[in-house]
Amino acid sequence: MAKEKKFVESITARDVDFAQWYTDVVREAKLCDYSSVKGCLNYLPNGYAIWEKIQADLDKRFKETGVENVYLPMLIPENLLEKEKEHIEGFAPEVAWVTRGGMERLQEKMCIRPTSETLFCDLWSRTVQSHRDLPKVWNQWCSVLRWEKTTRPFLRSREFLWQEGHTIHATYEEAEQRTIMMHNVYKDFIQESLAIPFVAGPKTESEKFAGAQDTYTIEALMHDGKALQSATSHFFGSGFPDAFDIKYLDKNNELHSVYETSWGISTRIIGAIIMVHGDDSGLVLPPRIAPVQTRVIPIAQHKEGVLEKANELVAALKKAGYSVKIDDSEKSPGWKFSEQEMLGIPTRIEIGPKDIENNQVVVVRRDTREKIVVSLDEIETKLGEILETIQKDMYDRAKKFLDEHIHTAVTLDEMKDKFENEGGFVKAMWCGSEVCEGEIKYETGGATTRCICKEDPISDKCIYCGKPAKHLVYFGKAY
Amino acid sequence: MAKEKKFVESITARDVDFAQWYTDVVREAKLCDYSSVKGCLNYLPNGYAIWEKIQADLDKRFKETGVENVYLPMLIPENLLEKEKEHIEGFAPEVAWVTRGGMERLQEKMCIRPTSETLFCDLWSRTVQSHRDLPKVWNQWCSVLRWEKTTRPFLRSREFLWQEGHTIHATYEEAEQRTIMMHNVYKDFIQESLAIPFVAGPKTESEKFAGAQDTYTIEALMHDGKALQSATSHFFGSGFPDAFDIKYLDKNNELHSVYETSWGISTRIIGAIIMVHGDDSGLVLPPRIAPVQTRVIPIAQHKEGVLEKANELVAALKKAGYSVKIDDSEKSPGWKFSEQEMLGIPTRIEIGPKDIENNQVVVVRRDTREKIVVSLDEIETKLGEILETIQKDMYDRAKKFLDEHIHTAVTLDEMKDKFENEGGFVKAMWCGSEVCEGEIKYETGGATTRCICKEDPISDKCIYCGKPAKHLVYFGKAY
Repeated sequence: MAKEKKFVESITARDVDFAQWYTDVVREAKLCDYSSVKGCLNYLPNGYAIWEKIQADLDKRFKETGVENVYLPMLIPENLLEKEKEHIEGFAPEVAWVTRGGMERLQEKMCIRPTSETLFCDLWSRTVQSHRDLPKVWNQWCSVLRWEKTTRPFLRSREFLWQEGHTIHATYEEAEQRTIMMHNVYKDFIQESLAIPFVAGPKTESEKFAGAQDTYTIEALMHDGKALQSATSHFFGSGFPDAFDIKYLDKNNELHSVYETSWGISTRIIGAIIMVHGDDSGLVLPPRIAPVQTRVIPIAQHKEGVLEKANELVAALKKAGYSVKIDDSEKSPGWKFSEQEMLGIPTRIEIGPKDIENNQVVVVRRDTREKIVVSLDEIETKLGEILETIQKDMYDRAKKFLDEHIHTAVTLDEMKDKFENEGGFVKAMWCGSEVCEGEIKYETGGATTRCICKEDPISDKCIYCGKPAKHLVYFGKAY
Repeated sequence: MAKEKKFVESITARDVDFAQWYTDVVREAKLCDYSSVKGCLNYLPNGYAIWEKIQADLDKRFKETGVENVYLPMLIPENLLEKEKEHIEGFAPEVAWVTRGGMERLQEKMCIRPTSETLFCDLWSRTVQSHRDLPKVWNQWCSVLRWEKTTRPFLRSREFLWQEGHTIHATYEEAEQRTIMMHNVYKDFIQESLAIPFVAGPKTESEKFAGAQDTYTIEALMHDGKALQSATSHFFGSGFPDAFDIKYLDKNNELHSVYETSWGISTRIIGAIIMVHGDDSGLVLPPRIAPVQTRVIPIAQHKEGVLEKANELVAALKKAGYSVKIDDSEKSPGWKFSEQEMLGIPTRIEIGPKDIENNQVVVVRRDTREKIVVSLDEIETKLGEILETIQKDMYDRAKKFLDEHIHTAVTLDEMKDKFENEGGFVKAMWCGSEVCEGEIKYETGGATTRCICKEDPISDKCIYCGKPAKHLVYFGKAY
C-alpha cells in the first residue's frame, strides 16, 4: 500500500507560491501532464472530462443560435495562409511546417492550422455564389498548433483544443450582430455555467486578432490578481473575404462582398476555472460543469448494511439524474475526503451506521465545507438545491473578489501603486496611442490594455501622455 | 430562382455506374467535398451531423464499459514511432513529417499521428508503476493523417476523423477479453444503430494491423458486392508495451509486463451507410442515426391555417423528443419531396388543407415510399413506431442482400465464377499461406481474405494449393 497522505500536504499553499500551487493542483488532480512531445500536453481523463462538459454545454448554446458543425483539414498550404497580409504576419512566426509526405518532399509546404479563417474562406470562395447561399454559420471543434516557446498546463501549449466558429453574411450589420451575439453567448456561458465573473468589451487596436476589424474579449480575474483572456469574438468586415474573392449575387443580380466573423474558446478556460475557484485543498469545480457532482463515501463500510445502503443511495441518485460515484475502496475516510476535495467534486455524501439508523446522510459542500444533514427521504431533491446554491455562492464570491480588485487611477503613480500592492484591473483614461500602451506596460512591469470600458470617463486626459483621452480602458497584467 | 430540378435527375442510377452514383449522392446531399488541401476533405454540415450522431451513440456505449476519454498530442517524434519494428515498417511510408517549427528547423522531425499506440505507450511507460495503476481503458476522438495517393469521400483521404481506444491490462486474459468486448460493442452498434449486417472475425496474418498479435474485424457488404472493413479491434499481447518498457509491480513486488489492446472506427463508416442503404433517389439514413428524423412539408401552404397547423405539429413533435425540421420555403412540394429523399431523412410528413380538415397527416417512409395516413391525435406515438419499423426493415433488407451474397467455393473456378458473376463474399478453405492469398488475389482480380469464418469446414484442402486447409475464410473484394 502507498503510504496514506493528505493531499493537502502535497500541494503548495496558494498564497505562498501561486504558480507552484497551480502546477501542484493540476498534477495531483490528474488533469493533464507534460508529454514527451515538447510543448504539448496529455489531457488526462479528469481534465478531458471537464472539456467534454464544456463542449456539451457550449455546443447546445451555439446550435440554439443556428450554428452548424463542420470539420475542415488540419493542414493549410502556404499560399492560402499568405492571402491576407496581416493574418500571415501575425501567424507565420508560430506555425509548424510539414515539408515531407510519405516518401516525397512536398512541392509546396503546408502548415498545421494555427486557426482556420483561410480554409473557411477558401472553401466559401469556391461554393458561395448567390444570396441564397448566405449566411454560413459554421463551427468546428478541433485542435490547433502554435509554436510557443514556454508551456504551462492549459494556459499555454503548442497544441491546444478549442472550437472556432466562422461565419459569413450578406450585410455588415448582420455580421456585426453575429459577432456580438457570440460574445454574449460566451458571457452567458462563463457566468452561468462556470460561475466566473469578468470584464468584457472591445480590444484596442494593438491587442486585436491578426486581420480583424474588431475583437470583443472576456477578461476574467484570477486569484493572484492577473487577468486571463477567456473567449474572443472577431468581426472582419469584408477585408478578409475580399482577399479570398468571396462574392455573391443579390436578387437583382448585382455582385457584393460578404462580411465575416470568427469566435473561439479554448482549453485555457480550464486554467481559469482552476485559478478562480481553487483553494488550498485543491480544485473546486462549479456544479454545472463538474463531471462528477457528488461522491458517496461510506463510513465504517465493513459494518453490516452500510455498503448496501450506500449503493442503494448511488442508484437512487443516478436514477434522479445526478452524476454520482462511490468510493468504496479500502482507504481511510480521511484519505477519501482529501481526494474528493482535491478533485474538486462539488459535494460528498457521508453515510455511516448512525446515519442509516437516523435515516439520514451528511452532505458536505466542497466550497465551504459546510455539513448539511439531509433525510434520506429528501436527498434526491435536496442535493439539487445544494448544488445550485454552491453554483450561486461560487459566482457571488468570485464576483466580490473581482469587484474588490477593480481600481481606478488618474495618475501613473496611482496605477503603479495599484498594480504593485493590490493587483487586478485598473481603469484609466487613454489617448489611443500604442506608444502610451507600450510605456505603461514598461512602467507597470507588464500591464496591458485588456479591453475598452463603456463607463463614463473619469478624466479627459490620457493617464500617460496627458493628451486628450479617447477611451476609458481596463489595464491588467495578463496570463 | 434556380431552375427547379428533380434531384433524382442529377444523380447517376446505382446500377449504371455505382462509383458515379456514390460521388453524386455525396455531392447532392452536401455531405462533404474535396478541399484545396490535396487528399483532404471538407466535412460539411450534413455529413458532419451524421458523424456527431455516431459519436454520441458510440461514446455512450464505450463509457458503459468503463472507457475514459483523453487527448494526446497530434505529433509523434521520430524516435517514438521507431520503437516498435513492425509498427514503423507499416506506417513509415505513409506519414507526413513536420521539419520546421516557427522559425527554426527541428533537431528531430515529428510526424502527424497516423495512429497513437506509440504516444499512449510512451505516456504509460512514465506513469504506470503498480498493479494499482491498471487497467488503463482510454479513448480519444480525433483526426489522423496517412499520406494516401487517391481520395474518395469518406472512404479514403489523407486526414480522416476517428476514435482510437487504447488499453493496458495486468493479464493476457483481461486484455484479450477487452479486445473481444470492443469488437462486440462495434458489432452491436453497427447492427442496432446503423442497420448494417456484416461478417466478422479475426484477420489472417497478412491483413492484421502493424504490430498486432490479433485483429478482429467487421466486414460489411456494399450494394455493389464489395466489402468494406468497418471497425477493427487489436490485441497486442505484451510485445508492443515491452518495446516501450511498460512494467508494473504486483502485490508481491514482482515486476510484470502489461498486455495491450487498441480499437477504432472512422468516418469511413459513413461511406458504408451510403453504400448499404442508398438508392437511386439518394441517401437513406437509418432513423437511429439520422440527424433529422422527419421533415414536415406543408401542402398549399399559402392557404389559410396550413402553415400555422404545420408549425404546431413541428412544436408538438419537438416536444415529444423528435428531431424535426419544416420546409416552408417557396419551392414546390415536388422539389421538397425530392430534396428530402436525396438527404435521406427517414420520413416526411405532408400536411395540407384536406389533411387538416380530416385531422390527419400523411407520413411517407423514405425507404419504401409507403404513405401512411395518421390521425393528428396519434402522430406523436405513431411516428416513433414508424421510425422503428423503418429501422428494422432496413436491417432486414440489407441482411437478406448479404445472405444472398455469401457463397461457398471448393474450387478456384467456382470462386472466380462467383466473383465475376455475383460479387459478395466467398467462403473457402485456405492453408494459411500468404503465397496462396496472393495467388487468389491475382486470379480473382482482387479478392483478399476478409476474415476467418468460425463455421464448420467445407473441405479439408486449400482452395488454391490443395494442401491441408487450416481455416475456412471469407474472401471478398474490398474498398
